[in-house]
Amino acid sequence: MKQIKRIMGIDPWKITSNQIEKEDRRLQESLTSIGNGYMGMRGNFSETYSGDSHQGTYIAGVWFPDKTRVGWWKNGYPEYFGKAINALNFASVRVFIDNKEVDLAASHVTDFNLSLDMEKGILTYTYVAYGVRVTAERFFSIAQQELAVFAFMFESLDGEIHQIRTASIIDANVRNEDSNYDEKFWTVKNLDNTATGSFIVTETIPNPFGVEQFTVAAKQSFAGDFTRVKQETRESSVLDVYEAKLVENAPLTFIKNVLVVTSRDIEPSNLTKVLSNLTLEISKKTYHEFYKEQEIAWKKRWEIADVQIDGSAEAQQGIRFNLFQLFSTYYGEDERLNIGPKGFTGEKYGGATYWDTEAYAVPLYLALSDEKVAKNLLKYRHNQLPQAQHNARQQGLKGALYPMVTFTGVECHNEWEITFEEIHRNGAMAYAIYNYSNYTGDETYLAHEGLEILIEIARFWADRVHYSKRNDKYMIHGVTGPNEYENNINNNWYTNKLAAWVLTYTAESLAKYPRPDLIEGAETAHWSEIVDKMYYPEDEELGIFVQHDGYLDKDLTPVAQLDPKNLPLNQNWSWDRVLRSPYIKQADVLQGIYFFGNQFSLAEKQRNFDFYEPLTVHESSLSPSIHAILAAELGMEDKAVEMYERTARLDLDNYNNDTEDGLHITSMTGSWLAIVHGFAQLKTWDGKLSFAPFLPSDWTGYTFHINYRGRLLKIEVTENVTVSLLSGEALNLEVYGQSVELTSSYTVKVGG
Amino acid sequence: MKQIKRIMGIDPWKITSNQIEKEDRRLQESLTSIGNGYMGMRGNFSETYSGDSHQGTYIAGVWFPDKTRVGWWKNGYPEYFGKAINALNFASVRVFIDNKEVDLAASHVTDFNLSLDMEKGILTYTYVAYGVRVTAERFFSIAQQELAVFAFMFESLDGEIHQIRTASIIDANVRNEDSNYDEKFWTVKNLDNTATGSFIVTETIPNPFGVEQFTVAAKQSFAGDFTRVKQETRESSVLDVYEAKLVENAPLTFIKNVLVVTSRDIEPSNLTKVLSNLTLEISKKTYHEFYKEQEIAWKKRWEIADVQIDGSAEAQQGIRFNLFQLFSTYYGEDERLNIGPKGFTGEKYGGATYWDTEAYAVPLYLALSDEKVAKNLLKYRHNQLPQAQHNARQQGLKGALYPMVTFTGVECHNEWEITFEEIHRNGAMAYAIYNYSNYTGDETYLAHEGLEILIEIARFWADRVHYSKRNDKYMIHGVTGPNEYENNINNNWYTNKLAAWVLTYTAESLAKYPRPDLIEGAETAHWSEIVDKMYYPEDEELGIFVQHDGYLDKDLTPVAQLDPKNLPLNQNWSWDRVLRSPYIKQADVLQGIYFFGNQFSLAEKQRNFDFYEPLTVHESSLSPSIHAILAAELGMEDKAVEMYERTARLDLDNYNNDTEDGLHITSMTGSWLAIVHGFAQLKTWDGKLSFAPFLPSDWTGYTFHINYRGRLLKIEVTENVTVSLLSGEALNLEVYGQSVELTSSYTVKVGG
Repeated sequence: MKQIKRIMGIDPWKITSNQIEKEDRRLQESLTSIGNGYMGMRGNFSETYSGDSHQGTYIAGVWFPDKTRVGWWKNGYPEYFGKAINALNFASVRVFIDNKEVDLAASHVTDFNLSLDMEKGILTYTYVAYGVRVTAERFFSIAQQELAVFAFMFESLDGEIHQIRTASIIDANVRNEDSNYDEKFWTVKNLDNTATGSFIVTETIPNPFGVEQFTVAAKQSFAGDFTRVKQETRESSVLDVYEAKLVENAPLTFIKNVLVVTSRDIEPSNLTKVLSNLTLEISKKTYHEFYKEQEIAWKKRWEIADVQIDGSAEAQQGIRFNLFQLFSTYYGEDERLNIGPKGFTGEKYGGATYWDTEAYAVPLYLALSDEKVAKNLLKYRHNQLPQAQHNARQQGLKGALYPMVTFTGVECHNEWEITFEEIHRNGAMAYAIYNYSNYTGDETYLAHEGLEILIEIARFWADRVHYSKRNDKYMIHGVTGPNEYENNINNNWYTNKLAAWVLTYTAESLAKYPRPDLIEGAETAHWSEIVDKMYYPEDEELGIFVQHDGYLDKDLTPVAQLDPKNLPLNQNWSWDRVLRSPYIKQADVLQGIYFFGNQFSLAEKQRNFDFYEPLTVHESSLSPSIHAILAAELGMEDKAVEMYERTARLDLDNYNNDTEDGLHITSMTGSWLAIVHGFAQLKTWDGKLSFAPFLPSDWTGYTFHINYRGRLLKIEVTENVTVSLLSGEALNLEVYGQSVELTSSYTVKVGG
Repeated sequence: MKQIKRIMGIDPWKITSNQIEKEDRRLQESLTSIGNGYMGMRGNFSETYSGDSHQGTYIAGVWFPDKTRVGWWKNGYPEYFGKAINALNFASVRVFIDNKEVDLAASHVTDFNLSLDMEKGILTYTYVAYGVRVTAERFFSIAQQELAVFAFMFESLDGEIHQIRTASIIDANVRNEDSNYDEKFWTVKNLDNTATGSFIVTETIPNPFGVEQFTVAAKQSFAGDFTRVKQETRESSVLDVYEAKLVENAPLTFIKNVLVVTSRDIEPSNLTKVLSNLTLEISKKTYHEFYKEQEIAWKKRWEIADVQIDGSAEAQQGIRFNLFQLFSTYYGEDERLNIGPKGFTGEKYGGATYWDTEAYAVPLYLALSDEKVAKNLLKYRHNQLPQAQHNARQQGLKGALYPMVTFTGVECHNEWEITFEEIHRNGAMAYAIYNYSNYTGDETYLAHEGLEILIEIARFWADRVHYSKRNDKYMIHGVTGPNEYENNINNNWYTNKLAAWVLTYTAESLAKYPRPDLIEGAETAHWSEIVDKMYYPEDEELGIFVQHDGYLDKDLTPVAQLDPKNLPLNQNWSWDRVLRSPYIKQADVLQGIYFFGNQFSLAEKQRNFDFYEPLTVHESSLSPSIHAILAAELGMEDKAVEMYERTARLDLDNYNNDTEDGLHITSMTGSWLAIVHGFAQLKTWDGKLSFAPFLPSDWTGYTFHINYRGRLLKIEVTENVTVSLLSGEALNLEVYGQSVELTSSYTVKVGG
């Protein structure tokens, strides 16, 4: 049933290939994307590639509000659809060998090899053309975020002398693949050649929405063994041409350094000056020094974050790939940023920020990075509270509604069935505040910024419910749950559950940290009435929570009984058929059971899992991880491993047949969640850390670290479980339900 | 609660005004639209008008497939949105008096008077500027459909001699107000001046959907007292300039005749030749002759169609306006055409054909025009059966799905919640076949073309239902009923009812007219099972049919309890709020009760009417008529009259505050339905004609005619009801339940 496509070799630390995938070049480009949180790009070749390809370079926080296209406008529709936009293409280095240009789609090229080194954050490829071996190495520097380095080495293989020419280009003539009318989002403001290299300054075109225009400036400078022979400016590109004579046994090096600065950080009028200064600064360091810095920076990240898996090279590669791509997208340096759905690997979906961050990413960053990274993610939402209030008002509702997708906090999705209806997202914002407070034990955020958010979200829910006289219940009609394969449903169990929980949690937090400046008692009394009379669809006979009011009336044929040629449904069925089907895109009731895992018995969890999982097609990249976690808790180890494999290698094996558009960045947390919250059963209910690991039968062991309340812990699972306190004070925790005071290390057999 | 805006004077046969409505010019333009079924235009002035205005000229069957704009494409979405496009502007006659141009928005203009004579189909306006009275008269000829006439008379009022210059223009530089990117849909293919006048040939731009491109050619020629002084061609317009000297007591006449031909009827290469021939032909007739022909043609229409109302000038004007505009749009001459939602009065909504035709227009044309007109409307759908099959396949379903809106039969709406879900439309196609057969007694269409359609529609429904094991019922999930203020609901009573009726009616018709070439018995047996187990939401306690599964869970506050400032909801509420509300845009359950009026008791009708009408906002122009009919049947005469007034004067009083965009053409049948099916209670159940009229208390009488099975009947209602057989054989009918054999005339007191 699973149709996978695996084009890259298996290696614990590398993503490799020995061929240019001409039929699947976009997929190969997605899988070899790199970035440094500040900017990044798809794995496009620097050389000319005349075949099908998706050239994409992206800069964090630089976007464009494209006019929303709908059939017939209705009140409350967002005005624009925010798009991550393809920024100027600065990776280009055309290579000419004896006046013959290398075209990696058309030239006779042999001995090709591609390798993305995830340990160091370096992408390398090498090939032989016209008697010369060319080796290209690139990275986006973590130590110097404005810097991207493109290095080339040339080696004569045939004993001949070769004339090598490189033409390094920065090109502002770029478009988005998903533009409505093939329109350009950029205009060139300035471009020129200077003694140290050429530069371009571009600005996003004006928009009618009062949204910020961005100015982006890029400059290239050079190092190595080549001599400049020409410079040129064209209408929307600049060019520096270098040449060298290549003789046997004397390899030549050519290095193109690109610096990129933007109006997000610097006054537009100062951009070229800052570029000049930075150019001077980086000219003092060698390529080798930058390379070393890159290696060290990634090493530091991996020291905490790495998950070591013994016994499955695929699983090992999968989780490292995910963590690598996630950290390439976001490592918390800039609180104005968030985790875009495609990061720097594509432009589909638009927007920068989904509820994925709060639901799936916050737990990982809490455990794998400094507390301030998760706190930055939370602050991002606090900074956007006024915009969330605006979004609620757009719908005629009180309080605050966090957007489905946004750059600024203003909703910029463009489907009413999502914007208006997938409002459960608002609960995830509150859940992240709970999660942070509960995991770190630090309630200062909750007491201040957190409560300001919670009160406004609670107000939204209190206004969005309606009272059904006939049932003497509060209901929530017209929603879309996490399962986006249904729209406009009534009383989605997950949404109702989350809404009531927000009201309760906010009231409890207010009791602990009173805010008479913000709210009076009558309001929380009304919340309490709503909570008491909230309606939850349940089925007594089946003993399950029902996804929504009409769900059980559907034709409930399990996925396994469908002819596999129907899958994935979203590529084979009309949307009408998808909507009417019982098939679930991602955990919905089960997402609620995961969030509130301490409120349900194992039997309840089992009944719901057994009912819903067979109806789930996992066509959202966010689906398998939650199922892996629950399956692990329920002792369904094979199912847990199956789900782990699907999340861990979703992109590497192109499970959903859409990785060519870019990687599923926000789902990259899934494999980590599956191992740590799933296989190892890390829980923190009521602030108490606990584990109950199992070891997948195909593995011989796995090891990971977590930060927890000022400690660094190491958890090794083989036939034994060993929890070690690497730093910080002694800690009380539970392993297989046994209380342990951890002072240095504790070992127990798997299963307890 | 009703916010009306009445800008035109009350007159039984005329629409009049004595001012240029500078603040509401678009509304005034809509209300003074004219057309002849072949083409038409909004009431734009020929003279320059520099104020806000919506210039619009439209040609029947000429359209453009504009790329569908959606957020994220999903399988089954229609590729394009078909738009009635603004064709070249040929009405323009700039007027200069002593070298000063008349600008009706800016010049000092007095004694303005505007009058649309509905009896004759002539629009006249007159004014005084710069000492000269100008009178303009225009019509779209019914006798010569390619001809539009623009006549001017000039009269010196101040005793001075005036130099009058006219500049007659045909301008191809036109755009649609609702274009996505302000794009032009036309290119000029040819334009020139000839001895008889100038012409332009334009073509619609290419489209990627394989949809026909249209060529439209227009030529102007002239008559009257003026002398040509200049001709010009510009990039996309042509110009003929005429002059004359105006002296006291010697009025001057200037006539611009415009001929329009298209590739719909003529090979593009022959268009200019045909224009020349036609120009020669019309030059043999005088303006007066064309005027006379126009008068006669309209007189003939009115002889059958006119409804005379005594005692209410507003009501009288309303129904004549509606019939006038309806017949200006469609009088059945061309079976390739249908009744567009805006006719020739605007471009909103796109498309040419909605289910409105079958549900609301067929009954009127059956009674007011030759049988072949209604039959042409039916044939239109038969001709498009292959496209309807295509539409069903697009959704992965069997049979045929007639489109929500179309030009060619291929669905070209662009909202999934309508395209995929508002499938009850498919039942209306079948209902029209039933209606035609039952009204005319002619079953030849049913037996041949009709059954071919019915079988395919039945197959659609049989595939679109699903079996719910839990309920042992067939259900229809994911629909939108006639009430478009809800989307994606389950088991809409109206849709389920109509679907089951289609299955039954098709099976019964097959029993009468077997079609072994098309279908086997097993299939109808399965239909019969579906009919037996169809689920209908009902509420025993309330004794009503329930609009859909979750409807009664809503907050059911009646419209009357809403603060009026919320109305109309679609202009004041977010779409989210509208969808979650209980408020009904147009008859939904009640539409079904109207369609199948012989299946329900009066008590059932009363309970449903009393429950649903107070929740209905009538924000569809199709709503009041059905409510008027049912209210009349239930003896709720005040409510029936209230609803009549709303449908009869919907545009004249701008009830829905959107007439500036164009008239609600397909709703124009509503006032006739309200009087004839409502006040007079015309019914034809089981092929038996019956009446049971009441007389609204404010009226002193009303009279109408109907065609019925080869007879022409006249029905007069005063304190008595008189039914007269004007032509045809004797007829059995019922009046107030009494059998009458009508040979010449029958009179009874109102109420029987």
